[in-house]
Amino acid sequence: MLVVMDRKATQEEVDGVVEAIERRGYVARPIPGGERVAICVLHNQGPVDASYFLGLPGVKEAIPVTHPYKLVSRESQPEDTVVHIGDLCLGNGTLTIIAGPCAIESEEQAVTIARHVKRAGAHIFRGGAFKPRTSPYAFQGLGEEGLRILAKVREETGMPVVTEAVDREVFDLVETHADMVQIGARNMQNFSLLKRAGRSHKPVVLKRGLSATVQEWLMAAEYIMEGGNTQVILCERGVRTFADHSRNTLDLSSVPVVQKESHLPVIVDPSHAAGRRDQVIPLSRAAVAVGAHGLMVEVHHAPESALSDGAQSLYPQQFESLCREIDPIFRVVRPQRGLGLNKLPKVAGRGLGR
Amino acid sequence: MLVVMDRKATQEEVDGVVEAIERRGYVARPIPGGERVAICVLHNQGPVDASYFLGLPGVKEAIPVTHPYKLVSRESQPEDTVVHIGDLCLGNGTLTIIAGPCAIESEEQAVTIARHVKRAGAHIFRGGAFKPRTSPYAFQGLGEEGLRILAKVREETGMPVVTEAVDREVFDLVETHADMVQIGARNMQNFSLLKRAGRSHKPVVLKRGLSATVQEWLMAAEYIMEGGNTQVILCERGVRTFADHSRNTLDLSSVPVVQKESHLPVIVDPSHAAGRRDQVIPLSRAAVAVGAHGLMVEVHHAPESALSDGAQSLYPQQFESLCREIDPIFRVVRPQRGLGLNKLPKVAGRGLGR
Amino acid sequence: MLVVMDRKATQEEVDGVVEAIERRGYVARPIPGGERVAICVLHNQGPVDASYFLGLPGVKEAIPVTHPYKLVSRESQPEDTVVHIGDLCLGNGTLTIIAGPCAIESEEQAVTIARHVKRAGAHIFRGGAFKPRTSPYAFQGLGEEGLRILAKVREETGMPVVTEAVDREVFDLVETHADMVQIGARNMQNFSLLKRAGRSHKPVVLKRGLSATVQEWLMAAEYIMEGGNTQVILCERGVRTFADHSRNTLDLSSVPVVQKESHLPVIVDPSHAAGRRDQVIPLSRAAVAVGAHGLMVEVHHAPESALSDGAQSLYPQQFESLCREIDPIFRVVRPQRGLGLNKLPKVAGRGLGR
Amino acid sequence: MLVVMDRKATQEEVDGVVEAIERRGYVARPIPGGERVAICVLHNQGPVDASYFLGLPGVKEAIPVTHPYKLVSRESQPEDTVVHIGDLCLGNGTLTIIAGPCAIESEEQAVTIARHVKRAGAHIFRGGAFKPRTSPYAFQGLGEEGLRILAKVREETGMPVVTEAVDREVFDLVETHADMVQIGARNMQNFSLLKRAGRSHKPVVLKRGLSATVQEWLMAAEYIMEGGNTQVILCERGVRTFADHSRNTLDLSSVPVVQKESHLPVIVDPSHAAGRRDQVIPLSRAAVAVGAHGLMVEVHHAPESALSDGAQSLYPQQFESLCREIDPIFRVVRPQRGLGLNKLPKVAGRGLGR
Repeated sequence: MLVVMDRKATQEEVDGVVEAIERRGYVARPIPGGERVAICVLHNQGPVDASYFLGLPGVKEAIPVTHPYKLVSRESQPEDTVVHIGDLCLGNGTLTIIAGPCAIESEEQAVTIARHVKRAGAHIFRGGAFKPRTSPYAFQGLGEEGLRILAKVREETGMPVVTEAVDREVFDLVETHADMVQIGARNMQNFSLLKRAGRSHKPVVLKRGLSATVQEWLMAAEYIMEGGNTQVILCERGVRTFADHSRNTLDLSSVPVVQKESHLPVIVDPSHAAGRRDQVIPLSRAAVAVGAHGLMVEVHHAPESALSDGAQSLYPQQFESLCREIDPIFRVVRPQRGLGLNKLPKVAGRGLGR
Repeated sequence: MLVVMDRKATQEEVDGVVEAIERRGYVARPIPGGERVAICVLHNQGPVDASYFLGLPGVKEAIPVTHPYKLVSRESQPEDTVVHIGDLCLGNGTLTIIAGPCAIESEEQAVTIARHVKRAGAHIFRGGAFKPRTSPYAFQGLGEEGLRILAKVREETGMPVVTEAVDREVFDLVETHADMVQIGARNMQNFSLLKRAGRSHKPVVLKRGLSATVQEWLMAAEYIMEGGNTQVILCERGVRTFADHSRNTLDLSSVPVVQKESHLPVIVDPSHAAGRRDQVIPLSRAAVAVGAHGLMVEVHHAPESALSDGAQSLYPQQFESLCREIDPIFRVVRPQRGLGLNKLPKVAGRGLGR
Repeated sequence: MLVVMDRKATQEEVDGVVEAIERRGYVARPIPGGERVAICVLHNQGPVDASYFLGLPGVKEAIPVTHPYKLVSRESQPEDTVVHIGDLCLGNGTLTIIAGPCAIESEEQAVTIARHVKRAGAHIFRGGAFKPRTSPYAFQGLGEEGLRILAKVREETGMPVVTEAVDREVFDLVETHADMVQIGARNMQNFSLLKRAGRSHKPVVLKRGLSATVQEWLMAAEYIMEGGNTQVILCERGVRTFADHSRNTLDLSSVPVVQKESHLPVIVDPSHAAGRRDQVIPLSRAAVAVGAHGLMVEVHHAPESALSDGAQSLYPQQFESLCREIDPIFRVVRPQRGLGLNKLPKVAGRGLGR
Repeated sequence: MLVVMDRKATQEEVDGVVEAIERRGYVARPIPGGERVAICVLHNQGPVDASYFLGLPGVKEAIPVTHPYKLVSRESQPEDTVVHIGDLCLGNGTLTIIAGPCAIESEEQAVTIARHVKRAGAHIFRGGAFKPRTSPYAFQGLGEEGLRILAKVREETGMPVVTEAVDREVFDLVETHADMVQIGARNMQNFSLLKRAGRSHKPVVLKRGLSATVQEWLMAAEYIMEGGNTQVILCERGVRTFADHSRNTLDLSSVPVVQKESHLPVIVDPSHAAGRRDQVIPLSRAAVAVGAHGLMVEVHHAPESALSDGAQSLYPQQFESLCREIDPIFRVVRPQRGLGLNKLPKVAGRGLGR
């Protein structure tokens, strides 16, 4: 923390701030500049709250210097975290593709799509059983029946499955049936849910909130890691801006920033960012090119009759062609890791990320 | 819903869209314009999902025409909803002031502040017992002990109390002890919590999410009303923008928009929007001038040693002077309602809004 | 400037940064903290560019400490600037009302509206002669003919007039005919235009850009003051956000922030922020309550046939009632200045701000 | 335009709107829905201004249906525009790389960097002679001397050169000396400058404004085309959002949207979006993968001593490695066009886009 004083702050005001800093157990070091005094706060364990100092007489600004996250920080763990989902690894230098419909609608729908995406190269199946919906009148998902269908998909195809947990009760259920639990964008700061995820033995994919800074997103992951669960994947899915040509604005620069600040893997969901099918393929290519560890894409064999978000779901042939396109892009991004095999003996994709 | 076709859409494509509309049980009415065809979707019960049509061949855009909310809409209930909190009314043409510290820290702190704010003119006491915090290492509130202290405040001062419920379990507790339950900005789309609030017999104050449109905010209130609870207050508390001179950007235009679209009362929390004490008083005046039904303001007798958000808390004398300033402003805004008495025989404020 | 080093930065890297700082003529003072080193940059004249240091080995962040503006800063001039427009003063503790149509359409239209707004209490007449329009096919204003009509309005009513200059050529014309020159939001960082305004002897009202921070806005004013023109008024008119219920989001917290950081007066234009008539009156009241030095409001006697922005223009009766409403609000905000007379012998308003 | 009536609008109010529509020469077609009436506006030439109808009694909303741009629209010209810059083509299915320093600082600096970037594969040299700077005290560019140096670079290396024109006067100069004229983000709605560009015989690269929608950006291009200049390139360079980990948020979804809506080529500038060197390479790869027609990248041989934006400039070796990485990515995106030769006999790059 750096406390910047007004140009006309008196010596008494400077002394008052020094005293306030020391009363909290920190060390204060005033730096007389040309125009004004700034006071460094030293020997703090963890971040200092700016609000302690902002209201004191003579204080102009209080500027945080260190980041508040610890466990998720690359400074605390320099090597990449590799997350294990069923037999698969994510974050080990391969590219992991997660695909499936927005919502599970029926066993037939789910298994049909799962076979399509597996054949095309997907490694993990996604599908919503509990859907957070803006309107109470919209389809809210099949619930537990959806989880049963996901288990069936795994049985039929050998793919691990991921689905969203919308609250703590649902988390218990999802944890039992799925291979990975998703926490959605609207729940990124549902701290009860994050604490529950921290006590889980299943990996968690944590979507970025619609208006979350990278720092807040990492702090949400810190909640999970602080609870003891180290298997966390971050998922960029677009943020809300004034732009109206896509549902959200996909912020791909968050990927290198997360990779620099943290050891946790980061994937990209272009489907929810775009909201329209015709943007999903170009944005998927861009997500791979920017260096994401994986992609999460919505695919539906009959999107025009989907119960949720049909307009952003790819047709199976589009998904196939996408998988073909991203393979050579990924080879460019991670040439040095090109030989690393993703351990997926039973999930025989078409060579993506292996 | 209006489905707009490409300028070069063929008759087959138009027919395909008409068929898709009718397959869903709606009536399709194509409107041949000068340049292109648009197709109106009629006789839908509730809103139509644009995504059904966006992906069809020849479709350029699908434009929603009606709003998706029902119960919260002023079209469904023209007269204002009045919310009853303890002996008080909010939304009946008076101005209701809610004040107190960000977090309950001790009985002494809470009672001291409560006496200050009551004397200055506040009607309801606020104070956090369960605090949603960005960092897992920050003070998370006193929990149940905080609720006990709130009950003590009510006993000592006669003021009704409001505090936040951060999840469903906490909701049960809060509902038992408090007179009104707050749902925070980060939980505005925590649909499990909204459904729980819908089953409550206590009034609920619902804060606007950091990146929520007014429509999404009203839809969140719709969840509560759909569950059977009609006692809902909306609270504007700023949205996240690029602006960096305040913590959030207080969007006061949402107040007249909510009042036009909905019958629910709307109040303003300038403290969380500003994040800095020196903006709170001018923004409070502005909130009253724009026509809000109430204010929620943070006050602390020793903000420099507060455990949470001290920098945005007013000193008691500042709060007193604020109450004096807003009284004549409110008389301007609601001159016709100036005679309406707020039913608060025991909570003898200093005349605000009465 | 504070240069923060990586936790693992070596002594060589710290030395390299110190050397880079000193090579630029500044003084470097390294502060060894508990976890990492930070290096203060001292004795800089004016702000230091962070980019000099961001790319050096071992550097984590470079945090600017001082603001880059000088002449506009309240630190350089503690007392308020008062701007003289014709016989009027703005910023002297009175409330100044600027009103008129979006665009000048004809002499009859302009004079009709001017008489209405003067009678209701406006002090200055506004009207666009050169209109910046998003579309090249939209009405671009009457041009020089519009300036001639503005002169006629002044002659008929005695009100000073303000109109926008869209480029340097137009500035020459506007400066000759109008009493104050407006620089629009889209031109806030048109630095050629700002430099031209700096050489003008007429006061300038500088609108905030749609995505400008307060600091950038003040820096734009700094361009004008640096050119020698001290008569600058800032005008908040809303910023662009995700919110879709108003054209822009009026950021009223900028008013106290500008007043704290700068000595220049700041007014508010609620019409362009709202874009819809029914929000203009509540937002105008809020602007006065927040402490603005003035209001700029669009009024049209026949808005449904206006050539530009009719939907946001008040009817004359609405404007009259607005003027009645804001008078008592202003008395609350500036009670101590309530006796100050605005020097406007010929422009006899109905008592606003006097 | 679709005018949506209140649910309780009377027949008189509907008739009033019909009359208002017809008074303007359009055809009105009321559509009685289940709950409310909507009225289609037909036979309009060009877009209809919503504000004509928004204020009429009984009107709830006025929804624009058609886009306001004509000449830039792909509906008016289905085939891609190819822009000619010196001997080069941009938009013909090849990838065009524009590189150079932020600002021209000296002949030696410019020629040194130009040789580096040409050897690495760049096709066009960029460098600012007139710099729009937020602060009046920052380096504003070498001015005409910078243009002379650019001419020298062309002479020495054979590369066409592009530089920014900050106002109409400067445009005359730049047009004379450069092969392409850049209009910067802050000038995207400087309509005088756009009109001047419309009269130019040189190609123009038009950067997206910091808070411009795609529609406004295309309308700015419409100004240039409407003036007679068809050689326009659009350049995405990031928009302003709440995100604070990059200078701006690069909105790559604008690329496929522009390509769908318009026939004009679109390139990406990741340097200004990122503001930090370590994000530029991943974002450049992403820009190529999303399908941009070109890249504009800042390169400096000694960024730590650059006079402007050094922190975002790549080192020459980084640029070389970037060029190597994007070549195979581009082959994936445009495999069908892989054989198209960019006509640059004298500018022998290393095979990018040829």
